[in-house]
Amino acid sequence: MTEAHDAVEVIVAKRDGGDLSDSQIDWVVDAYTGGSVTDEQMSALAMAILLNGMDRREIARWTAAMIASGERMDFSSLSRPTADKHSTGGVGDKITLPLAPLVAACGVAVPQLSGRGLGHTGGTLDKLESIPGWRASLSNEEMLAQLEGVGAVICAAGAGLAPADKKLYALRDVTGTVEAIPLIASSIMSKKIAEGTGSLVLDVKVGTGAFMKELDLARELAETMVALGTDAGVRTVALLTDMSTPLGLTAGNALEVRESVEVLAGGGPADVVELTLALAREMLAGAGREDVDPAEVLSSGAAMDSWRAMISAQGGDPDATLPTAREQHVVTAPASGVLTRLDAMAVGLASWRLGAGRAKLGDGVQAGAGVEWHARPGDTVTEGQPLLTLHTDEPERFDRALASLDGGFDISEAAYHPTPLVLDRIG
Amino acid sequence: MTEAHDAVEVIVAKRDGGDLSDSQIDWVVDAYTGGSVTDEQMSALAMAILLNGMDRREIARWTAAMIASGERMDFSSLSRPTADKHSTGGVGDKITLPLAPLVAACGVAVPQLSGRGLGHTGGTLDKLESIPGWRASLSNEEMLAQLEGVGAVICAAGAGLAPADKKLYALRDVTGTVEAIPLIASSIMSKKIAEGTGSLVLDVKVGTGAFMKELDLARELAETMVALGTDAGVRTVALLTDMSTPLGLTAGNALEVRESVEVLAGGGPADVVELTLALAREMLAGAGREDVDPAEVLSSGAAMDSWRAMISAQGGDPDATLPTAREQHVVTAPASGVLTRLDAMAVGLASWRLGAGRAKLGDGVQAGAGVEWHARPGDTVTEGQPLLTLHTDEPERFDRALASLDGGFDISEAAYHPTPLVLDRIG
Repeated sequence: MTEAHDAVEVIVAKRDGGDLSDSQIDWVVDAYTGGSVTDEQMSALAMAILLNGMDRREIARWTAAMIASGERMDFSSLSRPTADKHSTGGVGDKITLPLAPLVAACGVAVPQLSGRGLGHTGGTLDKLESIPGWRASLSNEEMLAQLEGVGAVICAAGAGLAPADKKLYALRDVTGTVEAIPLIASSIMSKKIAEGTGSLVLDVKVGTGAFMKELDLARELAETMVALGTDAGVRTVALLTDMSTPLGLTAGNALEVRESVEVLAGGGPADVVELTLALAREMLAGAGREDVDPAEVLSSGAAMDSWRAMISAQGGDPDATLPTAREQHVVTAPASGVLTRLDAMAVGLASWRLGAGRAKLGDGVQAGAGVEWHARPGDTVTEGQPLLTLHTDEPERFDRALASLDGGFDISEAAYHPTPLVLDRIG
Repeated sequence: MTEAHDAVEVIVAKRDGGDLSDSQIDWVVDAYTGGSVTDEQMSALAMAILLNGMDRREIARWTAAMIASGERMDFSSLSRPTADKHSTGGVGDKITLPLAPLVAACGVAVPQLSGRGLGHTGGTLDKLESIPGWRASLSNEEMLAQLEGVGAVICAAGAGLAPADKKLYALRDVTGTVEAIPLIASSIMSKKIAEGTGSLVLDVKVGTGAFMKELDLARELAETMVALGTDAGVRTVALLTDMSTPLGLTAGNALEVRESVEVLAGGGPADVVELTLALAREMLAGAGREDVDPAEVLSSGAAMDSWRAMISAQGGDPDATLPTAREQHVVTAPASGVLTRLDAMAVGLASWRLGAGRAKLGDGVQAGAGVEWHARPGDTVTEGQPLLTLHTDEPERFDRALASLDGGFDISEAAYHPTPLVLDRIG
């Protein structure tokens, strides 16, 4: 089927600034998945792509080739439209937890295939696994049945989905080739398109705690992904949202589940509620259900019912007591004034170092570890009041976590200028 | 000794256009030699170096790190000064064969560590191995004794010399990262500096049959290598020489030995004699022996005596009949006129396809295979006269060899404008 090429020929074409042909892309992705293009060859190609870029046709073809490397799911038999959300990763970003059951309660099915956390941002599966009994792995049949019955499922992506992406992602992680917009966009979108959702909302984070620190790069990534989704027949929009400040008041696994349940109960931090509703409105619009007001559904308690059904369906006990860490350390405010800055990366690193995250895939995480903050930027604090509480099972972790918080917040007399949470919308 | 670094940190620094520190370079070369930096990581770094470059300090440090990965030879105990020559590789480039014994006959020791051919350019060791009995492998003690006694040695580089370069060269060959001037320069110079020669002349080829097709790139490579040699205390000069036309009248193993012996006997093609003498003068100057005229030594027969002693010392019989190929095919001139072009790459590919070269290291070569041409650019030819003779043991190879000669020469009525053989001198 595919024309025969040679790995060096493909690498040299991109190295010298050329465009790869459809045939070259199909061949190299297929040969890499099969092993006849080696890791060292793909690594050189990834660096050439990072430095010389790919155009829209190349990225679309690369994405299609990664999808073709594995199975595709199909939700067309469902009685409801489908909508999914993907976040590029942030600190305290528990939005998927209240969002999926909320959108399901609005009559749209949410097939959310999630991952585990790596580095300073947490993973949705890690958070849910702090609920006693809950399991992340479902068969395709279980997933389809839960989507029809409950309307929302959050589970691990099976190994059959875009295996070329899994192999390439692991390679990029160790070869300094993660930060290539064509490869990031095709990695995310190959999984989402293969997953078979009818519509998709992308939450592209920007700021110190995000993968993309600058607005223009985040916008380029968002535009690339929206184009990829649209070209593949998935109704796709992206919100660019702020990740200079961590979301809500907690970062950690059980800590974030607790905060999500508060939101579902009608409370919770204002920013988490705001972003959950903004993303829910986009998902409902993508699924053709603009007529439903998610704020009403949230306050009605229907979203909480969906949450309980979703957790129970995957073996979890929604009434179980969540784990707490064995040790706490309180950081008090060193001065009185207005908290003008709380840095997302500082909080994310602290939470990671306390045991909420992992350094490499396969490591375990602590269910109870993480950071709580007792004030958000704009709040007035008094010298000596508790500002942050650190949680861990291993008190020897406090020192390194405290070091990452050094310089991570400002308290001053200066006026506080809030920045909007949603910075832009693409699509 | 070396500060600890991380492979991704080093790759990202070069990827983002930064300079690598001495400590980063020492660490990454050492860790790659030892295996803790993997092939896929080094491949990404090589691509980043190819696309973003290295400055003079970085290249010098990289070269020093590759030298430090293995043993260094020392010829300071010899009673004579030492001089070596390196060619970047050309078609019909047998110059080392008459040059080494000629310079030895002038009173300068020549420790020539050579390689085998790969692709369309031949290897000096392959050529000499067409002499019955001759062996390429010598111990360091045998090499030193032969340098003291005969004055010239051409042999294989031991595995202990710059092992980092050997590993990196094999990797670059399969990852599209051969064409990086910093890596080419450090690869050549690490071996030459580790070899311990006191002075060095580089023959940097330019033209269709050379690795460097353009004069400005060849000059950049030459300048980089001269700077590296000079910084390391080796008196180094480079000649930029033409490789649009193949050297002499033959390409192949035994064919080139026969032509070299003609030069040592006082005959041979004018261009081979001219380049041999030009390089000999540079080597003698580098060794402080400008007072000796190599043309006189050549015509005296002393260079032939050195050749016979050098071949005998390594087990070869200088009087043995050289192998000839079993089959010949003659290409006649399709028109009368002046031969205005004979393309070096076309001839090199034909010779390779006839069996004189190898596709990958480890393959064998035919001693008798190759191409003879019976006219050089500027010569008048008559329609139907023999223009080229192809030699091989396997007649099924003729078709592909003839295909590579298609369009490889021009015969016309137009005036012929010869180009100089030596294009420039650096150092």
